[in-house]
Amino acid sequence: MNAAPKPADVLRERICTAASTLFIRRGFGATTMQDIADALGISRPKLYYYFKDKGGILETLVSNVPVEAHRRAQAVLASKDLDSVQQLRELIVQHADLILTRPLEFRLLDMSLEHLPKAMQTRAQKAKRGLLDAFTAVIREGAKEGRFRPVDPRVAAFAMIGMCNWTAAWFQGDGRLAAAEVCEILADLGLASIAKSALRAKPNGVQSSLRMLRQGVANLEAALQHG
Amino acid sequence: MNAAPKPADVLRERICTAASTLFIRRGFGATTMQDIADALGISRPKLYYYFKDKGGILETLVSNVPVEAHRRAQAVLASKDLDSVQQLRELIVQHADLILTRPLEFRLLDMSLEHLPKAMQTRAQKAKRGLLDAFTAVIREGAKEGRFRPVDPRVAAFAMIGMCNWTAAWFQGDGRLAAAEVCEILADLGLASIAKSALRAKPNGVQSSLRMLRQGVANLEAALQHG
Repeated sequence: MNAAPKPADVLRERICTAASTLFIRRGFGATTMQDIADALGISRPKLYYYFKDKGGILETLVSNVPVEAHRRAQAVLASKDLDSVQQLRELIVQHADLILTRPLEFRLLDMSLEHLPKAMQTRAQKAKRGLLDAFTAVIREGAKEGRFRPVDPRVAAFAMIGMCNWTAAWFQGDGRLAAAEVCEILADLGLASIAKSALRAKPNGVQSSLRMLRQGVANLEAALQHG
Repeated sequence: MNAAPKPADVLRERICTAASTLFIRRGFGATTMQDIADALGISRPKLYYYFKDKGGILETLVSNVPVEAHRRAQAVLASKDLDSVQQLRELIVQHADLILTRPLEFRLLDMSLEHLPKAMQTRAQKAKRGLLDAFTAVIREGAKEGRFRPVDPRVAAFAMIGMCNWTAAWFQGDGRLAAAEVCEILADLGLASIAKSALRAKPNGVQSSLRMLRQGVANLEAALQHG
């Protein structure tokens, strides 16, 4: 069982959420610590106990997402019991889940990257690069194994990361689909976009041809039974 | 033959590009008309001849992209000689091309939507909605015709628009791929993500089963000849 989160952590999280909303709506420059305290209904001294200034909140906010994205991707790559198809599915599900869980933080990073201190920009960019490399490596590996079509691995990686990232711009948590459903749909679309279907594949062996023949016979039987 | 663009239009375009770069790097609030004039090496009066203030430049910049995206999508939908597969390919190519051509304007819109006057927000959102509706309609139509898998049309539309939009974050015009190549790759990935392959499809008739059997036999023959 997980221990319940500490009250201090809960408030820290609430401060980050309230601040990202204000930073996005009003802009970082036009938001004051007083505004953030007001939005939460807490005192300014209490807020200062957690963060020394709004820059500190911004730093916490924007470094969370790319670093966490990179960590998750590395964990997927380390799962040696998954094959390349399963790894790609998991990369998409994990990344979409992160963006769907923290859409404001993600948008804020995207909007304020140019305004951040150099060291933080570098850290965020390194993590983003790590995420891209993970997707690219799995797509390349799967293509080598004949599981994926020979697509441009880097553009395919950007396309998949892009469709996940874009959820931050449209997903409504209270809409008709749950976040977990969106993750599954995106993983399905991403996999299908580069999957090698038996028909698209070049003839590659007796076994796969037999599999296709057996499937064709089964389909024909079903069609004739319903016909 | 197209007439050469008028010098005034060329300068207008250059002002827009220089201003978007500054707005993104420094933020809208921290950029002055003087900065924009300096970036172009023109006088302030000359700049004011084209735009009454920086707000006017921002308005021009950010209304261009979604309105143009919507216009292009409507043109594709109006092409009655294209079937749903060709329409979807064209929607993706056209939209990716727009974002690849105007990445700064697109990023600026994405970053500043919350700061725009209400009327302009509404116009941009209406155009974005129109783009989404166009993708959704074509995906739904293709599924009805049995050309596409029965995916969630709205999520698939967002996924495809997202992978196009995300090019604004990564594409380098001077890189190893031309913009036109990226458009083609994205169209291929988008189409494949929902294309119905014979094997993925549920058994749906005698003809498709026979097609699969014939293909299986051909593959088997090829495999045995090389074996």
